[in-house]
Amino acid sequence: MFSSTGRLTDLICGNADANAIWSPRATVQAMLDVEAALARATAAHGVIPPEAVEAIAAACNADDIDADALMLGAQAGGNLAIPLVKQLTAVVKSRDAEAAKYVHWGATSQDIIDTGVVLQLRACLDLIDADLRALSDALAAQAHAHAKTPMIGRTWLQQALPITLGLKFAQWLDAVTRHRERLGELKARALVLQFGGAAGTLASLRDKALPVAATLAQDLKLTLPALPWHTQRDRIAESAAFLGMVTGTLGKIARDISLMMQTELGEVAEPAAAGKGGSSTMPHKRNPVGCAAVLTAATRAPNLVATIFAGMVQEHERALGGWQAEWEALPDLARLTAGALSNILAIVPSMEVNAERLARNLGATNGLILGEAVMLALGDAIGRLEAHKLVEGASKASVANGTSLFDELAANETIARHLPQDRLKQLLDPANYVGEAQAFVAAAIARANSNKQEQ
Amino acid sequence: MFSSTGRLTDLICGNADANAIWSPRATVQAMLDVEAALARATAAHGVIPPEAVEAIAAACNADDIDADALMLGAQAGGNLAIPLVKQLTAVVKSRDAEAAKYVHWGATSQDIIDTGVVLQLRACLDLIDADLRALSDALAAQAHAHAKTPMIGRTWLQQALPITLGLKFAQWLDAVTRHRERLGELKARALVLQFGGAAGTLASLRDKALPVAATLAQDLKLTLPALPWHTQRDRIAESAAFLGMVTGTLGKIARDISLMMQTELGEVAEPAAAGKGGSSTMPHKRNPVGCAAVLTAATRAPNLVATIFAGMVQEHERALGGWQAEWEALPDLARLTAGALSNILAIVPSMEVNAERLARNLGATNGLILGEAVMLALGDAIGRLEAHKLVEGASKASVANGTSLFDELAANETIARHLPQDRLKQLLDPANYVGEAQAFVAAAIARANSNKQEQ
Amino acid sequence: MFSSTGRLTDLICGNADANAIWSPRATVQAMLDVEAALARATAAHGVIPPEAVEAIAAACNADDIDADALMLGAQAGGNLAIPLVKQLTAVVKSRDAEAAKYVHWGATSQDIIDTGVVLQLRACLDLIDADLRALSDALAAQAHAHAKTPMIGRTWLQQALPITLGLKFAQWLDAVTRHRERLGELKARALVLQFGGAAGTLASLRDKALPVAATLAQDLKLTLPALPWHTQRDRIAESAAFLGMVTGTLGKIARDISLMMQTELGEVAEPAAAGKGGSSTMPHKRNPVGCAAVLTAATRAPNLVATIFAGMVQEHERALGGWQAEWEALPDLARLTAGALSNILAIVPSMEVNAERLARNLGATNGLILGEAVMLALGDAIGRLEAHKLVEGASKASVANGTSLFDELAANETIARHLPQDRLKQLLDPANYVGEAQAFVAAAIARANSNKQEQ
Amino acid sequence: MFSSTGRLTDLICGNADANAIWSPRATVQAMLDVEAALARATAAHGVIPPEAVEAIAAACNADDIDADALMLGAQAGGNLAIPLVKQLTAVVKSRDAEAAKYVHWGATSQDIIDTGVVLQLRACLDLIDADLRALSDALAAQAHAHAKTPMIGRTWLQQALPITLGLKFAQWLDAVTRHRERLGELKARALVLQFGGAAGTLASLRDKALPVAATLAQDLKLTLPALPWHTQRDRIAESAAFLGMVTGTLGKIARDISLMMQTELGEVAEPAAAGKGGSSTMPHKRNPVGCAAVLTAATRAPNLVATIFAGMVQEHERALGGWQAEWEALPDLARLTAGALSNILAIVPSMEVNAERLARNLGATNGLILGEAVMLALGDAIGRLEAHKLVEGASKASVANGTSLFDELAANETIARHLPQDRLKQLLDPANYVGEAQAFVAAAIARANSNKQEQ
Repeated sequence: MFSSTGRLTDLICGNADANAIWSPRATVQAMLDVEAALARATAAHGVIPPEAVEAIAAACNADDIDADALMLGAQAGGNLAIPLVKQLTAVVKSRDAEAAKYVHWGATSQDIIDTGVVLQLRACLDLIDADLRALSDALAAQAHAHAKTPMIGRTWLQQALPITLGLKFAQWLDAVTRHRERLGELKARALVLQFGGAAGTLASLRDKALPVAATLAQDLKLTLPALPWHTQRDRIAESAAFLGMVTGTLGKIARDISLMMQTELGEVAEPAAAGKGGSSTMPHKRNPVGCAAVLTAATRAPNLVATIFAGMVQEHERALGGWQAEWEALPDLARLTAGALSNILAIVPSMEVNAERLARNLGATNGLILGEAVMLALGDAIGRLEAHKLVEGASKASVANGTSLFDELAANETIARHLPQDRLKQLLDPANYVGEAQAFVAAAIARANSNKQEQ
Repeated sequence: MFSSTGRLTDLICGNADANAIWSPRATVQAMLDVEAALARATAAHGVIPPEAVEAIAAACNADDIDADALMLGAQAGGNLAIPLVKQLTAVVKSRDAEAAKYVHWGATSQDIIDTGVVLQLRACLDLIDADLRALSDALAAQAHAHAKTPMIGRTWLQQALPITLGLKFAQWLDAVTRHRERLGELKARALVLQFGGAAGTLASLRDKALPVAATLAQDLKLTLPALPWHTQRDRIAESAAFLGMVTGTLGKIARDISLMMQTELGEVAEPAAAGKGGSSTMPHKRNPVGCAAVLTAATRAPNLVATIFAGMVQEHERALGGWQAEWEALPDLARLTAGALSNILAIVPSMEVNAERLARNLGATNGLILGEAVMLALGDAIGRLEAHKLVEGASKASVANGTSLFDELAANETIARHLPQDRLKQLLDPANYVGEAQAFVAAAIARANSNKQEQ
Repeated sequence: MFSSTGRLTDLICGNADANAIWSPRATVQAMLDVEAALARATAAHGVIPPEAVEAIAAACNADDIDADALMLGAQAGGNLAIPLVKQLTAVVKSRDAEAAKYVHWGATSQDIIDTGVVLQLRACLDLIDADLRALSDALAAQAHAHAKTPMIGRTWLQQALPITLGLKFAQWLDAVTRHRERLGELKARALVLQFGGAAGTLASLRDKALPVAATLAQDLKLTLPALPWHTQRDRIAESAAFLGMVTGTLGKIARDISLMMQTELGEVAEPAAAGKGGSSTMPHKRNPVGCAAVLTAATRAPNLVATIFAGMVQEHERALGGWQAEWEALPDLARLTAGALSNILAIVPSMEVNAERLARNLGATNGLILGEAVMLALGDAIGRLEAHKLVEGASKASVANGTSLFDELAANETIARHLPQDRLKQLLDPANYVGEAQAFVAAAIARANSNKQEQ
Repeated sequence: MFSSTGRLTDLICGNADANAIWSPRATVQAMLDVEAALARATAAHGVIPPEAVEAIAAACNADDIDADALMLGAQAGGNLAIPLVKQLTAVVKSRDAEAAKYVHWGATSQDIIDTGVVLQLRACLDLIDADLRALSDALAAQAHAHAKTPMIGRTWLQQALPITLGLKFAQWLDAVTRHRERLGELKARALVLQFGGAAGTLASLRDKALPVAATLAQDLKLTLPALPWHTQRDRIAESAAFLGMVTGTLGKIARDISLMMQTELGEVAEPAAAGKGGSSTMPHKRNPVGCAAVLTAATRAPNLVATIFAGMVQEHERALGGWQAEWEALPDLARLTAGALSNILAIVPSMEVNAERLARNLGATNGLILGEAVMLALGDAIGRLEAHKLVEGASKASVANGTSLFDELAANETIARHLPQDRLKQLLDPANYVGEAQAFVAAAIARANSNKQEQ
């Protein structure tokens, strides 16, 4: 029954597509895809006989690989490519003994492993790209819809001044827009071929080295870098940093949602999915299961990034530990990011917004959160200092007496003279003190749209 | 073919036993073991009917669990226990509908998950304990065997003064002895039952709560803690820190071995195992495959520890991300530690020591490394300051002329007067300037033995 | 005006005593204390002339050291000891040229630096020890005082079942008790002399090496280890892990307090200190300034621990980077821990508890949080399954109709028959459904007391 | 004597300019620069009286600030801006009571702190930019100079195949080129104004909010972002990631140099600076002091990055811990990066290259490293498989007999027939088997130049 590869908990914040991209089978297949392309490229330049290509390419099928033998071989050889090439050669040999001589020609293990990872990374970044676009659209829609919905802004986990729910969405959106910019830059830099041979000189390919490299890159639709990069891991580190940053932003979103979902706040809720987060005996309880998955990812991602950064300090032309540390850390990180993203994407478009609770929470301090608004208006009339003194006095009285700020302000003769009750009510309406919230929402949406058109 | 659970690269620094302990199947079985024990304990105190026990216990078999459904259920519910209890209940119900009502009685998901992890941790710490003992014995034997074998001590990756190979082993040994002390303390503190019910009060068990808890602990052979610890994760953090420290020490050992194995040093080598680290086309090359695996673990471990430490900041009575971050980080860390340990254990007892290269490297500086020995002896006769001046002069001349220090010293009249050639040769013999190396080796072995007797 | 050493933000979560222990001046003085003790110890065994001791010891005063020159010298030499010994020698020489010849005799830079750090660590651990004791007492008092004060227990940031405030304190307390156990074990293992000379053999002290080491340890009141430990950093790593674990627990406490302090919960508050966290214009706002400082420390500590763990992989007999990485990381970590501890200690004993809000929050779900209590009582009469069905129905009706659970339950004939209104009210009183909260509080206090007596 | 701010060890891998940029005084001055600009911007739009500007701007001088009071105030208020504004206001008031009313108008603490950090970051990135350019030039020059200098390529710390020293430099260079690209992208995205007022709406500036923001950005020569970003920290995280990646690359360079500097390799050396890394008693020893400083930075940087990434999960409109964790982590990271960079920059242009040792090390395996070259040439004549068998046999014989590969190959009749001694010698000359090393060097230099012209 426990036939599925991967770890049991993977799926908790899992994205099935990302899990598939990084599965053991897909990892092996990516390496085999590189071997097949290598056979084609070397044959194209007369390095190996053209008739060897078909047999090699046909054998580059993960279904023909014995996974257990592969893992044991990796333990002995120190990487997956060594036993994989051995198995591949055996498969080819069983069909075409001559072709078997030309398997893996001119490449080193790291060429196959790194390029395989780049292929997986490309697939995963495409997935993330699509989900970031979808999230951008969903956030833009929500920001637009709630551009004027007042809610309390909170600093230090304390009620501060009003904002709008749309502004909160717009903040998240603008971060997503920046991540999309970064992703474009990253793809251009990171999705490149690794091909250098045993010491990074491609010496064994003699005068065919550069043409083979160019053809190989073209075949795999990867950029050909200026030179091999076996122990220069900044491209991988940048990929990791991107994934970590996205997860950080998603973690911030999940933190906000889960805080707003607290029983005592009840402002928003994850959409109710069948069997998701509910409790039969506690019908008041709606667990933020999606947010929890994202926060789990956000707890783990920074240290996976750190692992890959720490691994950058590599020895000479092939590392002893630093490179190998990437092998699980990068896939884990990519899976967590993709999983966190799909969780947030499952929440944002259909998030339940409770207008009544948003409004009730705005009133929790009896109007105190709007003292500043009154003070500014009063200041226009009697000077800021005097206004400050009067409003501060009314605020303190409100707290002490358990009265509303309106009552305290209205009871003050000086204030009443300058701010009649209608005006006071207007000033104490949170919707009237959200500053540039709408302008900021519009700006964030405009930037998101402009970014979308560029890409 | 890709039916094996776990990740392909797991085995690269893998310990098969540890991988088995933390496999998806074993994880589920550990939770089921807790469910079975819970049924026995609640029945023992009349909370559930005694006749329900057998049906429940019989169904607590991981082979009856659908792994794929489990993972999908975990995604919806946010943890593995929710869908596991659901499946378990269904299995029991199919056999004994009445018994099915009493599955999981009184427990919360976290009770099952945490106690299951503690059971796995116990098994893994036992494994590590045994391997640390074996490593201790191997290091003590090597330290004893090479207590007097001179080698160059290196600081800043530069040759400094002579030490003995045994002293190097003794240093490693003493760290292992300290880890064994820590492990004893850790086991006493960390291997405890988790049992608190939904909010940590065991309220639903009413007056049977404490007796059930005591019986449950006894059944599982775990310590009963003073109270539940759902969001107090210091026990898990301490376990992680222990694992991380052990891996750090193993990483230091692997760093030293791999540096000594450099082609240009050639002082030691990993034992030649069939197909391990060799190269058919480069017979001079013996890759430190075991060390690489250990250094990989040592690159990853610190950040897995950090993940678990970061997760300690948990909310109220059940965490939102911090707890869940442990689920993969702790098993990964435990596996890496056990794997690193088995790699070092495969090297140390049969490490190849190349006496000729050790000696040749001691001579690489033409005797300069023994200038201090000569200076001290000369200082006894003519005062330290004067001796320092003379030896420094001879050393510089040796470097400048490419001559041996002996020749330069012997050519100096003042020196020659006080240190005849025989005495000079004796002073320039590295074996005579290793200070307390032997005493330190003996002390480290004595401490290791004393620790062994205590346990 | 910017004459104070240290960093501006240090004090934000700062403990003045800890900052003093780790200040630049104290760091230098600790090293000088080791130099003075070394002079005494070498003189005691006839290695250096007894008349040199006084001059050397007298010069071991940080006030005589030029800090700027020290830092520049450290850059050239790679550590602080090299330029410090140079300056110290110059100071001694200016007073007693003969004595100057015997400064730093037999030691290597790392001996002085490491032993100096151990002296600072001892002072800081003593500070932390005292504060942990004080925190233990404060938590025990609060746990005792509020053992029966009901409050809502929260899981997933959602209201779950009642607990007591005392149980929450008891949970924190028990973690503190475990930390105090760990501290005792740590001190025994970590507070040891470092003394090995240039390559760890003490060769230059010839037959006086071991006696000098013993006297030096005794002079500094440090344990004499079996052998030097220049590149075996597990003692430092264990110290770091301890500090990190303590900060993790403090972070959990701060997280809980800051969540309970939210405007919408208002259950507790940091004590109002003059000018601390208040706002003149927003009198409703009480910023959790102390908690923020602790959470800052808890965000940083895990990665400082990871830095020190990563540094364990050291080369040969003196490291190239791994050791040096400790120099700022360990003091930073120790300061953060001590600072976090003093912040929590400033909060816990005089934390404001708002009984009215605690009660109001318990009522926020109209009684739904007590459905389980009713179900259990009803189950005794009519069977658990039937009871579950009835209570679940009433709960859902309560949510749907906005009525209280009491009203829905009381309106049901079957329920009414078995649970008269008085009994229902009793069952719906949160104070009656806190399970073993009091027993757990008592157990945690007993363990804390027992630990106190042992030490 | 200990008047210097900062920490003693800062300077070990320190860059004096970077230390100055992030000094306590400069930190305060950056915040004051923002306050002054704010006064000008608000006055420009009639929010505050124009006559207040001069008094405020004149008081924005760090020399007038009491650092100790500032730090104590920060502890009470939770950040530096609160007590700074208080002190600033007092200074202004002492000179112009009316102007004092308009200090800090419309801003929140975080506006001042974040924008101040951005100003410091800009200065530091400019410094790093200049140093990266200088390093690029130095590496290009070295790569060009040594494009054809053969050296042994090493994988797994074992001799593998020849490369050229220039290729090693070119690898480092190409990573630097990519970092320079990243820096351009980062600057455009990260060097932006933070200005949102108490809850990010700029409400208190009413209709003047957007004009004031625009003028403020222009005054400070910062980009005006679409909206405030108080709790969206991806810009800071990206800055941290950039710094961490640069340090990772520098760490790789330092690792390689320090390995090549090993006494037993002696291929390169850090330039001999007065008093840097030398030892009077051990003239053979040249400590890689610069490399050690860089490796220290590289050990610390990944975890400082992780700290900032972990801090991204911030609460609502102002964080509780996550933001504050940046305050020391970002400056530490920036200083370490700048310091590491200046250390590498002090090494690369004047690195000592020991041609004799490079050549000697190439010969360490008696020619075995060139077996592949011979095999390829022989394979042209007799087929690869047969060639492989013969060369493998000769290689094993060479190892077993301690003879040179040349002798073994020359002694084989079949080989001798196809490869006469002259040809064999040519094939066994490492300089003839460095593949595309020169082409790769040229490509890396071309990319560096092209990048330089773009910027």
